[in-house]
Amino acid sequence: MPADALSSALLPAGLHDVLPSEAAHEAAAVERLLAEFAAHGYRRVDPPLVEFEENLLSGAGAAMAKQTFRLMDPHSQRMMAVRADITPQIARIATTRLKNEARPVRLCYAGQVLRVKGSQLRPERQFTQVGVELIGPLEPDADAEVVLLAVQALAAVGVPHLSVDLCVPTMVSRICRGLGQSEDDTRRLRAALDRKDAAGVAAVGGPAAALLGTLMGASGPADRAMAALASLPLPEGAEKDRRRLTDTLALLRVAAPGLTVTIDLVEHRGFEYQTGLSFTLFSREAGELGQGGRYRAGVQGDDTGEPATGFTLYMDNVLRAVPAASAPKRVYVPHGTGWAAAGTLRAEGWVTVAGLAPAADPVAEAKRLHCGHRLTDGVVQPVE
Amino acid sequence: MPADALSSALLPAGLHDVLPSEAAHEAAAVERLLAEFAAHGYRRVDPPLVEFEENLLSGAGAAMAKQTFRLMDPHSQRMMAVRADITPQIARIATTRLKNEARPVRLCYAGQVLRVKGSQLRPERQFTQVGVELIGPLEPDADAEVVLLAVQALAAVGVPHLSVDLCVPTMVSRICRGLGQSEDDTRRLRAALDRKDAAGVAAVGGPAAALLGTLMGASGPADRAMAALASLPLPEGAEKDRRRLTDTLALLRVAAPGLTVTIDLVEHRGFEYQTGLSFTLFSREAGELGQGGRYRAGVQGDDTGEPATGFTLYMDNVLRAVPAASAPKRVYVPHGTGWAAAGTLRAEGWVTVAGLAPAADPVAEAKRLHCGHRLTDGVVQPVE
Repeated sequence: MPADALSSALLPAGLHDVLPSEAAHEAAAVERLLAEFAAHGYRRVDPPLVEFEENLLSGAGAAMAKQTFRLMDPHSQRMMAVRADITPQIARIATTRLKNEARPVRLCYAGQVLRVKGSQLRPERQFTQVGVELIGPLEPDADAEVVLLAVQALAAVGVPHLSVDLCVPTMVSRICRGLGQSEDDTRRLRAALDRKDAAGVAAVGGPAAALLGTLMGASGPADRAMAALASLPLPEGAEKDRRRLTDTLALLRVAAPGLTVTIDLVEHRGFEYQTGLSFTLFSREAGELGQGGRYRAGVQGDDTGEPATGFTLYMDNVLRAVPAASAPKRVYVPHGTGWAAAGTLRAEGWVTVAGLAPAADPVAEAKRLHCGHRLTDGVVQPVE
Repeated sequence: MPADALSSALLPAGLHDVLPSEAAHEAAAVERLLAEFAAHGYRRVDPPLVEFEENLLSGAGAAMAKQTFRLMDPHSQRMMAVRADITPQIARIATTRLKNEARPVRLCYAGQVLRVKGSQLRPERQFTQVGVELIGPLEPDADAEVVLLAVQALAAVGVPHLSVDLCVPTMVSRICRGLGQSEDDTRRLRAALDRKDAAGVAAVGGPAAALLGTLMGASGPADRAMAALASLPLPEGAEKDRRRLTDTLALLRVAAPGLTVTIDLVEHRGFEYQTGLSFTLFSREAGELGQGGRYRAGVQGDDTGEPATGFTLYMDNVLRAVPAASAPKRVYVPHGTGWAAAGTLRAEGWVTVAGLAPAADPVAEAKRLHCGHRLTDGVVQPVE
């Protein structure tokens, strides 16, 4: 069996070893993202990998119940769950341990999550999740802040050709409810909208179907979508959603005039626990890099918690969008070189690779150890 | 119930939320340690949190079997285990996926491990493990390199009053075997040595007991211990251990003349899978910071794998030894300040905290948000 097949057979499907160059690339990108979050006042928290099942899977966490591994805790004799999503943990921290802190609370995190099954598009069962949560404020400035922070942080790690797709996942159901569409028809409308099936939407019939068909057709570049949306009569709840979309877009336009923004007026998939303005981050090269939006934070569930917004980035896709860092400059330091002499080279930015025994041919030894340079007579020289 | 009791009741015993200042402190320290390892040619790898039980708990991993949580994998229908120690994973990567790479292979890692039970001294069941592995070389230069790297990395994160305790955990059994002590007596000797019970050691009797009693008494500051050890007649296997200790200490003395080194000549607890020169890192303020030493890397188990050495640091104790970083300088940026203007402050090193709505009293608002400064008329001013 070739080494690679042997190695992959060692690990369960969807789990993998991150090998040297990739691991350094990921660590540097995560560090850069967190530095950007910190500069905007987001303070890092680290919840544990495992919690009691009933806490981790309550409220917003319930959506991940089927994707979550369980463990029996021999200490408490209660079931624990391995986190499949960090967001509910951050909301829990904000609303319990930090409940007496001044609002808004700005928090950020980076960590591993584990899932029972991978999807066809994303077979991995372990991810690095990196993100922020902004808990407390209702203002559209909060919506704009998290979108702009995501954009700025991704730009800081070198993601090119970034775009943001805004949506309000509550809009479809508010329109259907406001216009008296039956629940059955609403379900059929959703299914047709998910398929982007205009004929299917029209076939359902009724006032909501006509309006949703128009909204689906108007989705796309932000200014065109907003122009179409502005002239439509909307029921009350959806009118609020339109206002939030308009206000947030205006703030984004001022702060980041060059940003590519699209709007999907009928999107809701993947935003099951979002309760207001939401967004997806795209790169031309790597597809979806992350998503975020409004929700209610709190152990009591969606309806009673605090207003909150935030986003999560998928590091596997982010790394696909970011050019790999250049390999560090390695210098072979022959056996017997003093510890301090090698330290001087490290202080100059070299990675020193010490020879642990005398080498008959130091040039060959440097090459064997993937060093482009070697130290000889106190001087760094290229090999070849 | 006070907020703290409520919060701790939310989490299983031994698991906790790392809150803002502590999380940033830990992340910065981990990053600094890994940068130090990288500068010495150690390349980062990230194995998964979970592996097949039979792989994770084979060879050196078997020691952690009772401390390891199991999960059923619905995909393969095989048992998986959540890692309780990262070291065996790094050894696996080196001997499988990287088996064709030039030796020595230098690898480093940082990650979370989970354990079924905490100990009395360390009740935590989740730790951050950070460390290096040096796989391939037999030379004492390798032993010295990992000790010096641990010392240098800990100094780089600011650990004061660091000391290293060297030991060779194989020495006791080699002496007992070499001098023909019975297995029963060897067990009794070990128990007495673990208690540092000189009378108990003497009571066992026989040639090994006399020698081990002398070794126990000679343990302490390195030079005194080595002087005592030098004059003792040792059986063959233990003679090899003495030579390695002497050679490594000589290398340490040259590279780090100011380093406090002690030697425990009869230590073996906590080094169950070590096969040669080993060490513990101590801080006067925080006790044991980590340990390391020789072992055999490879899925086939202790006797057939490759020679290897390395160390693991316990971040909880490391952080107790390191002075907390100074809090970042936060500046309150009132509502309506342009995104770019705040960006200029961030580029100057400020943490900007944006007001999301107009504030009637900006000074009070800055204080409420824990900002020592505020931006007013384009100028940063302290708030009292």
